[in-house]
Amino acid sequence: MSGPAAPPSVAPVPAVPTNALVEYLLRLGDDRLVLGHRVSEWCGHGPILEEDIALSNVSLDLLGQATMLLRLAGDAEGRGRNEDALAYFREVVEFRNCQLVELPKGDFAFTIARQFLFDVYAVVMLDALTGSIHGELAAIAAKSLKEAKYHVRHSGEWMLRLGDGTDESHRRVQKAIDDLWRFTGELFAPDDVDRAMQAAGIGPDLAALRPTWESLVRDVVSRATLTIPNDLPRVASTRGGRTGSHTEYLGHMLAEMQIIARSHPGATW
Amino acid sequence: MSGPAAPPSVAPVPAVPTNALVEYLLRLGDDRLVLGHRVSEWCGHGPILEEDIALSNVSLDLLGQATMLLRLAGDAEGRGRNEDALAYFREVVEFRNCQLVELPKGDFAFTIARQFLFDVYAVVMLDALTGSIHGELAAIAAKSLKEAKYHVRHSGEWMLRLGDGTDESHRRVQKAIDDLWRFTGELFAPDDVDRAMQAAGIGPDLAALRPTWESLVRDVVSRATLTIPNDLPRVASTRGGRTGSHTEYLGHMLAEMQIIARSHPGATW
Repeated sequence: MSGPAAPPSVAPVPAVPTNALVEYLLRLGDDRLVLGHRVSEWCGHGPILEEDIALSNVSLDLLGQATMLLRLAGDAEGRGRNEDALAYFREVVEFRNCQLVELPKGDFAFTIARQFLFDVYAVVMLDALTGSIHGELAAIAAKSLKEAKYHVRHSGEWMLRLGDGTDESHRRVQKAIDDLWRFTGELFAPDDVDRAMQAAGIGPDLAALRPTWESLVRDVVSRATLTIPNDLPRVASTRGGRTGSHTEYLGHMLAEMQIIARSHPGATW
Repeated sequence: MSGPAAPPSVAPVPAVPTNALVEYLLRLGDDRLVLGHRVSEWCGHGPILEEDIALSNVSLDLLGQATMLLRLAGDAEGRGRNEDALAYFREVVEFRNCQLVELPKGDFAFTIARQFLFDVYAVVMLDALTGSIHGELAAIAAKSLKEAKYHVRHSGEWMLRLGDGTDESHRRVQKAIDDLWRFTGELFAPDDVDRAMQAAGIGPDLAALRPTWESLVRDVVSRATLTIPNDLPRVASTRGGRTGSHTEYLGHMLAEMQIIARSHPGATW
């Protein structure tokens, strides 16, 4: 062939270690699968119908994002596992979600505070991923970013209502932040997988996203008359959930989530 | 004032006994509140992510419809109860849903068969209610009808897949129909409330809807290579759920659904 080749309409997936790409996609997908299930535990148990519905919508968005990301992870892995195989037939040590999302749903204030911390993380992360040279990932990120912006508006408004509400609601949401803060270190601690993705142009400089995240979080927290604890370590010495180290809570959740699929593999009743 | 009055842009609510209108709206709202909660019990327990998400969407639609209908019921009642008060602070004998929707979710085939029977009922009922002279009810019906048409496509396709699928799926869905059929009599047995609504132009001739419903149901059932039992009574001698007679299952469901709202009335955490 002679002459300049036409530029490809879709950038090819860059050459990176397959394992690193699969790991990266599992982290993104598992965060949303696990948090989506945690939020769905409010279905039918909220104190207000409208809020029950709002939280269920958030849960559905997260599960939809998880489905797309795990499907992409299965494709990248090339071993014939689809999103269902990855969701229902992996053991707890194979899950790559951060520990923040696996903690039990707690009370409403805890659920909102955790959701807010995650939603801001999702927005800055997905916004960066829309610039990924991995075309399918960039497309999923763009679709998910719209949803995440809605989610953070919802959880952010609740942070203000609870923080600047009654003494009881203020006390509860402050306790939630105090309990949750140490789990945020894991979100922005890059390891070899993150560095490989960044080098390949697939993912962002993870550590560089933290100041943006923290400034957005601090703005809402201070307007909600709440405070962020200073005295807790922000970065775990190990990677925690990203390398398969999970709290006891994830195992319990997976046992319940996986029982039907494992009892009747391939069946639909 | 002289001259002909301008026609009102919105037809006024016709003069009917308030109690009958409230009862009627509670029946419509409670069907959807209870079934929405039953379907939401699949959240995070389905065998396939896509189906988990599809059922959750159906649940959300039903809860959204219930919210609108119960709000309207509270307005009509005029005693200051909103949709949350009606959902969370009524006792089991005050619920007006049909018994069909309160039965436990069972296996996936049972859930689908129940959903299909209800979805067809919802489509014929909502289609009729779009012609109601009660403007707000007609508007809610029009919005809900779009959703119900999507739901019946979903449950109808599953009826075909399960009925015409494996021996096991056929057996399970046939058993579901056999068990559920006797609960369909209640759907089309008009009482004084229905007759008052029909006379006022608010609701349809309920009994006249049954042939349409049954023909739509029989078409899918026969294409699914399934049969409808002949030997079961179709119309209960009492009105069942419509007058507050419920199976034991509704009480258990409400206990779980109402616990948080009742433990912390007025609170949001």
